[in-house]
Amino acid sequence: QQQLHPSMLTQSVTMSWIPVSADSHFPIQNIPFGIFSTKSLPSWPRVGVAIGEFVVDLTALHNAGLLDDLGFPSSILTESTLNSFMNLERKYWRAVRARIQDLLSASNTDTRLSSNEVLKARALVPVEDVVMHMPATIGDYTDFYSSREHATNVGIMFRGKDNALQPNWLHLPVGYHGRASSVVVSGSDVVRPNGQLQVDKDDASKGSTYGPCRLLDYELEMAFFVGGQANPLGRPLTMAEAEDRIFGVVVMNDWSARDIQAWEYVPLGPFTAKNFATSVSPWVVTLDALNDFRCATSAGEAQTNPEPLPYLQDPEYGRSSYNVRLEVQIQGPQDTTPSTVSVSNLKYMYWNFKQQLVHHSVTGCNMKAGDLLGTGTISGPTDDSLGSLLEGSWRGSREVPMANSTETPAMRKFLKDGDTVIMSGYAQGEGYRVGFGAVSGKVLAAGSTTKEAAAAAAKAAADATNAAGPRNLKLYSYWRSTSSWRVRLALALKGLSYEYAAIDLLPLVGNTTELIDAELRAKNPLDQVPLLEFTDAQTGET
Amino acid sequence: QQQLHPSMLTQSVTMSWIPVSADSHFPIQNIPFGIFSTKSLPSWPRVGVAIGEFVVDLTALHNAGLLDDLGFPSSILTESTLNSFMNLERKYWRAVRARIQDLLSASNTDTRLSSNEVLKARALVPVEDVVMHMPATIGDYTDFYSSREHATNVGIMFRGKDNALQPNWLHLPVGYHGRASSVVVSGSDVVRPNGQLQVDKDDASKGSTYGPCRLLDYELEMAFFVGGQANPLGRPLTMAEAEDRIFGVVVMNDWSARDIQAWEYVPLGPFTAKNFATSVSPWVVTLDALNDFRCATSAGEAQTNPEPLPYLQDPEYGRSSYNVRLEVQIQGPQDTTPSTVSVSNLKYMYWNFKQQLVHHSVTGCNMKAGDLLGTGTISGPTDDSLGSLLEGSWRGSREVPMANSTETPAMRKFLKDGDTVIMSGYAQGEGYRVGFGAVSGKVLAAGSTTKEAAAAAAKAAADATNAAGPRNLKLYSYWRSTSSWRVRLALALKGLSYEYAAIDLLPLVGNTTELIDAELRAKNPLDQVPLLEFTDAQTGET
Repeated sequence: QQQLHPSMLTQSVTMSWIPVSADSHFPIQNIPFGIFSTKSLPSWPRVGVAIGEFVVDLTALHNAGLLDDLGFPSSILTESTLNSFMNLERKYWRAVRARIQDLLSASNTDTRLSSNEVLKARALVPVEDVVMHMPATIGDYTDFYSSREHATNVGIMFRGKDNALQPNWLHLPVGYHGRASSVVVSGSDVVRPNGQLQVDKDDASKGSTYGPCRLLDYELEMAFFVGGQANPLGRPLTMAEAEDRIFGVVVMNDWSARDIQAWEYVPLGPFTAKNFATSVSPWVVTLDALNDFRCATSAGEAQTNPEPLPYLQDPEYGRSSYNVRLEVQIQGPQDTTPSTVSVSNLKYMYWNFKQQLVHHSVTGCNMKAGDLLGTGTISGPTDDSLGSLLEGSWRGSREVPMANSTETPAMRKFLKDGDTVIMSGYAQGEGYRVGFGAVSGKVLAAGSTTKEAAAAAAKAAADATNAAGPRNLKLYSYWRSTSSWRVRLALALKGLSYEYAAIDLLPLVGNTTELIDAELRAKNPLDQVPLLEFTDAQTGET
Repeated sequence: QQQLHPSMLTQSVTMSWIPVSADSHFPIQNIPFGIFSTKSLPSWPRVGVAIGEFVVDLTALHNAGLLDDLGFPSSILTESTLNSFMNLERKYWRAVRARIQDLLSASNTDTRLSSNEVLKARALVPVEDVVMHMPATIGDYTDFYSSREHATNVGIMFRGKDNALQPNWLHLPVGYHGRASSVVVSGSDVVRPNGQLQVDKDDASKGSTYGPCRLLDYELEMAFFVGGQANPLGRPLTMAEAEDRIFGVVVMNDWSARDIQAWEYVPLGPFTAKNFATSVSPWVVTLDALNDFRCATSAGEAQTNPEPLPYLQDPEYGRSSYNVRLEVQIQGPQDTTPSTVSVSNLKYMYWNFKQQLVHHSVTGCNMKAGDLLGTGTISGPTDDSLGSLLEGSWRGSREVPMANSTETPAMRKFLKDGDTVIMSGYAQGEGYRVGFGAVSGKVLAAGSTTKEAAAAAAKAAADATNAAGPRNLKLYSYWRSTSSWRVRLALALKGLSYEYAAIDLLPLVGNTTELIDAELRAKNPLDQVPLLEFTDAQTGET
């Protein structure tokens, strides 16, 4: 086998002909979907899957015909988001994953990729050359509050031990609608928000002041993307339908401004304390990839006290969570090594994914492919498994140690400017891991401009120039010319307006050398259309 | 002038050459934008504006060149949503409105439409032939709670007079994120939701039961669509920027399941009690059309007790609301005439649109064109100006009379199956009205299938057939044939997969009659490509 990359020289449990190390998150058993581009051409996002230290470019596989005959138009796998693919039925997600596994399998099930050196060079992109994007355009984003351990901790803090869980909590997965536009992909910086803070935390009547959030926190969550065709508004989903409507899962950091939240959230819930950023890991791991890691939740095999209402009863409850180890790390601004501050697990969820989805639609809400549903903070029962600093520092009353930090003292109550928060997760198999990679984000000081904002400002300026009017575009065209027609199609698709100069080519076609339009010949001695003229240069028929 | 329609024979204050009656919502002073199609071709939604009893088809104006030279590609005005148009700067919204007013003006500013009978027949669609659609694809939907009269009423009901307003209410516009996918256009039926209801309203510890909502309510609201280029995440909007980021306004009914809400909303706010439906009026009225109706809010010329924090201070506060009369009607299932149950006004808003938008972004949230921000229920100070039945019936303790109903007794505490709720609004000028039209919706019994759901099910079945695989499509093509290339483009755009049959046409081009591919000639005696073959029929080059 050809050695594709130095990183492959590590010892590997390879079931793929691509060597994959035992601690890789992306063995052939996983095949998560994501949207990537290359650093050399970042503006061309497209679908890929992760395998070891590579991203497989599905556009390359599609162009080579390797995704044909899967029962759907495989051009969907060349799009710039996963939405269309997510909108298909689960059988098609499975078919694509199975096809890719066949192509990558060391047992030579399908050698059309492994035996084609040219295609391999085209389709396998080393991860270090890759830029990751949001996997989907999120229609609606919802966040739940489904970890009993977390809800109990927060309840004890704010209401005392006897009233820790609100009366409704064991009867339904409490959730709220969040902000979709501010969900960002791992690697995006997060500006510490300014907002309204209660002047005196013990006396709300003293009102509020404006300033930077002082209690900036993370929330360790997972989230799933809805898939499949939307249920019509007014027609709730059933438990039997739920699993097929879940496309796949990511790790999520639901950044939270605790002090802003405390002041604003009565009586309608969190708002500006949450909508400034939510970060997700870029690779979407399918439920099929997680199937071998099914388990009971920390609530046990069944929900019995109380039993949920029938619509929320999951006959498979005892095996409808997943044993996914979750880790939170903080890397201080001067640190070279991140410190692990919490290790939790997806199984600390009282309400599972299916129950969240079904409850979300109980009154008839239409659930669409690309919707993102978060678990809520996932905390375990011990001090080293808490999913937020609110709990870790117990509302600021104690410090969370940072073992690898060079700071003195090395600890946190809440996040500082310059901190990078890294969350990751994986399910451990025998000799391999099905992992999620990481979601990371760095905290910038209040008022900072992110690189994304700077780029957006530059783009806005450029767009303003482009939108300012016809860019002095002039198209010399002949109505019967199909080549000219194609240029007109392209201009229309790009929304560019242009001046139209009609040329009659017939005398030329008849081998007459007489020139019909002196202006055209002056600009294009070949007498050919289309000629697209703009201020800086001219483009001929190429 | 030609009489275009019988309805125009009514007396009219016409500043347009199209007669418009004095009580029409859509005189030339308005020019609201919407998305319409015709009943004969409902699947072609496109941009229109309302004028009197007509919709002006902007695609027809664009095709005739009447929207040229406005400084942006006017093909944007032929799209199936207003999102691209909303995404432009305000100066372009103004330019389009001014151009249309010029074209419709009786003073013959621009006669290119009024003098062109063929174009008039094409561009003016009688409202009775029109189907209205959602004006935009909503990115995120947020609902506020900004009427002091409403918040006070609800507060008194649930907490008593002394604690009616929560401590934060006068310091910020309280709001929460809502569900975008279930925002529907006027005319959509609403299925009474099933959901979780508290068994004993005085003892939450007794848990919940599942069943149809018993306290179904409307909320009289207005809402605005965000316009302009999004602020980057992390960069809040300022008060000075706010007005230019508001595209226009609609009337909205935020249907609410009061009993479901009471049980679920602690501590994170309303969720399934709200996400089953929110209805909006189809015509988006621009702020420019409302400019003559600026007024102070019912709070007076300024907010002084307390003064808002500087970022929320609006120097124009005393003229930043709008005097829009709002009316709610209920038509019982047997009634032929609706009964007015409330008359309120947009001015009963303590926080204005600009303040809502600025506060929404205070922590850096990116506000995008197409986002929808609702005011919250708008109630006036008197019993006949309450924006919800919750207030009208004072939590079910009294009845709201229905003056025109034939029922005995004719009254409501909450909505019954078969009730149609109609909300409308207008600003009264001298001899004309700038209006919003109406938003209406009928309540269907729990478990009903809406016509939209039935249509969606039919479409899903058809799509499943289409997506089931290559529809036995086979394209006979020659690689140099631009005509074949266009068929391939169309197939790719439609996402259809097909079998490719390569034909070499060169011998034919050279006037050789020798047939290269007997299969092609058997199917198309003209020997021409492209030939697209499918199961039922064959399509040649047409």
